[in-house]
Amino acid sequence: MVEFLPARNIEAKLEGVYWAPKASFVSEALDSVALTYEGIAGDRHSGLYRQSGPREPWYPRGTPMRNERQLSILSVEELAEVAAALSIPELRPEWIGGNLLVSGIADLSLLPPRTLLMFPSGATVRIDGDNGPCKKSGASIAANIPGRPDLEFGFVKAAKHKRGVLGWVEREGEVRPGDVVKVRIWEQALYTP
Amino acid sequence: MVEFLPARNIEAKLEGVYWAPKASFVSEALDSVALTYEGIAGDRHSGLYRQSGPREPWYPRGTPMRNERQLSILSVEELAEVAAALSIPELRPEWIGGNLLVSGIADLSLLPPRTLLMFPSGATVRIDGDNGPCKKSGASIAANIPGRPDLEFGFVKAAKHKRGVLGWVEREGEVRPGDVVKVRIWEQALYTP
Repeated sequence: MVEFLPARNIEAKLEGVYWAPKASFVSEALDSVALTYEGIAGDRHSGLYRQSGPREPWYPRGTPMRNERQLSILSVEELAEVAAALSIPELRPEWIGGNLLVSGIADLSLLPPRTLLMFPSGATVRIDGDNGPCKKSGASIAANIPGRPDLEFGFVKAAKHKRGVLGWVEREGEVRPGDVVKVRIWEQALYTP
Repeated sequence: MVEFLPARNIEAKLEGVYWAPKASFVSEALDSVALTYEGIAGDRHSGLYRQSGPREPWYPRGTPMRNERQLSILSVEELAEVAAALSIPELRPEWIGGNLLVSGIADLSLLPPRTLLMFPSGATVRIDGDNGPCKKSGASIAANIPGRPDLEFGFVKAAKHKRGVLGWVEREGEVRPGDVVKVRIWEQALYTP
């Protein structure tokens, strides 16, 4: 007998918004940002489409595909947990290319795929799922913490299931720090046939 | 302690492809169909964008949004189960607007959001999640089974968690009956903080 967890709604707060307008994936804080169907216009990960990479080993590298990874969403709580696990004073969202920083969602990285993040302007982000921590992010952290080259690999291990979620823009609109975020989680069940 | 079910791959078979080119949502069988980023070109539910409806009570009716419901995917097994529950000789995918009919996936409707369906041509469909059975589909079934007006409401009840899944095109390509479908299911965990 399959057990279903009912749909539920929770509230969160948007703490920061960031974009990565340059070649680097390191992001920079903004006062507000317009979410469009392409993501954040001008951001390194924006676009309706993208090319596949090492995260899609089932496709030849460079295969055109729809872009479900427009936005990297991080939480204050998970960044603090990962920083503590790595014994570093802080882990800034910019270092690992975050776009939206939220608070108030326990275990953000475990939010089920399809979850909706709804903002006061009407903007909505649909969650694709959790992000896998990579060495590139680890190296970026190491570049900010002198004398800790171990962080490049250490991050990959410490941030497993704590590196936030990815999503794409379902409804356009502006978002800004301080926004109350309505989070809709759909009915859940494990698939175990 | 959160329990994670590892990612897994299964195989299925594509049994039929259909489109709904007219005002009605009832679909018609085809020999093959091209999946594009808009879905099935000319189909009633194709498009990169759509307007919100009664399934999105959190948006004002008619709100522009990204279209995550391009394709209705049904299974031979679930259609047979629902037909048996309704005591009707068959439930044809066309009657309820199916686009892709598959076999070999137990509990298709419970496939987790984010699941990938990969076809031999390179086409990939990304699953958004389960479809909710509606009275319109029930009425369409009733129109094909004389003397059973009860099917309009009966379908809504009998097809709960058995009405298939919705998805959108991640990679373009042609698909045809007989195709072997590689199904990638991601790591799963229930969100229960």
